[in-house]
Amino acid sequence: MTVPQSSLFAAKAKHLGKSARSRARLIDAALAVFAREGLEAASVNEITREAEMANGTFYLHFKDKDELTSVVALSVAAEIVHEMDEAMADIDDAIERVSLGTRQFIHIASERLNWGWAFCQAFWVLPELRKEAGQYLRRDLERGVAQGVFSIRVDDFLVEMVSSLVNVALFARMNGTAGAEAGSKAAEMQLRMLGVDPDRAKQAAWRAS
Amino acid sequence: MTVPQSSLFAAKAKHLGKSARSRARLIDAALAVFAREGLEAASVNEITREAEMANGTFYLHFKDKDELTSVVALSVAAEIVHEMDEAMADIDDAIERVSLGTRQFIHIASERLNWGWAFCQAFWVLPELRKEAGQYLRRDLERGVAQGVFSIRVDDFLVEMVSSLVNVALFARMNGTAGAEAGSKAAEMQLRMLGVDPDRAKQAAWRAS
Repeated sequence: MTVPQSSLFAAKAKHLGKSARSRARLIDAALAVFAREGLEAASVNEITREAEMANGTFYLHFKDKDELTSVVALSVAAEIVHEMDEAMADIDDAIERVSLGTRQFIHIASERLNWGWAFCQAFWVLPELRKEAGQYLRRDLERGVAQGVFSIRVDDFLVEMVSSLVNVALFARMNGTAGAEAGSKAAEMQLRMLGVDPDRAKQAAWRAS
Repeated sequence: MTVPQSSLFAAKAKHLGKSARSRARLIDAALAVFAREGLEAASVNEITREAEMANGTFYLHFKDKDELTSVVALSVAAEIVHEMDEAMADIDDAIERVSLGTRQFIHIASERLNWGWAFCQAFWVLPELRKEAGQYLRRDLERGVAQGVFSIRVDDFLVEMVSSLVNVALFARMNGTAGAEAGSKAAEMQLRMLGVDPDRAKQAAWRAS
């Protein structure tokens, strides 16, 4: 997936009703404007212009820029995790899946979203975003328990703790506290949390991918 | 420490200048109003009335309620961690310090702040808050490395990852995803991250305190 991709969400909505299609065009337009200007500088005016819509149309779909930003963060997260999940279809080992999933998500989000910090903040405000990001992780945690490599009990709170490290690492990567190694560091800490032996955790988290 | 305590910050500021004292009174007043009404319902009007000040005085000290909320979160966090640090002065074992620190912080903050969710969100917006909360933790991490019980390299990013679990647990406790066991669960996961053997981590995190 390339983010921003000028008509990704519009393409997905093309068989839906008019309202859903307009909404998708606004999401695509917002992604393009966020990428170009950054989130702070992006205005509703500019987003509607990018979408080739009248300004008033915006407010039929979103209360304000904040609401749009939340929806964009959610749409992008859903898209990234869905595509990653497909790309990892052949990987069975839960240790590798968690490590790769964390590293890839941070890599993709930090490389392509110059407004990634907004994504990080949205994570805490939007339970849907945590749920969306968490559902794939939850399956991998359950897989690891079934494979006997994770010594944990999987519940909502555990999923939030493990996925929060992805968010912290992305945030650190965006604000410069961490460099390109953020994903590997986060993955190593996650695997330790899950009960993986430190040597094995290190090996899985730092292997060239 | 009892939070809210009607004049905690005013008492601390009593030897400072007039502006610092007014500011401290507003923080105390905000704590009282937040506790009584919750953060959403609290108004600048009501906070200034509680502080027995004119409304205009508020804006000499704070841009708006959001800024006040941030300062309140920061002041409370600093107070809690400082008092906990004093209470733990006799505890030398880094494993026990991390476990107790995490459990106590979540317990105090969740029991006494009905606006704790705002605290959690502030954590991600205010680097100063993360730094304040992190500085005590950092010392305990370094202590554990020196004692040979933590197998990590202490840097800013690690401190953020470990302390984020405190925040996630407090958030889960406030929104009902986790109950009173949130602190022990978070402490257990932190100790595993730090390289403590899972059995030892469990024992330290779940012992009756």
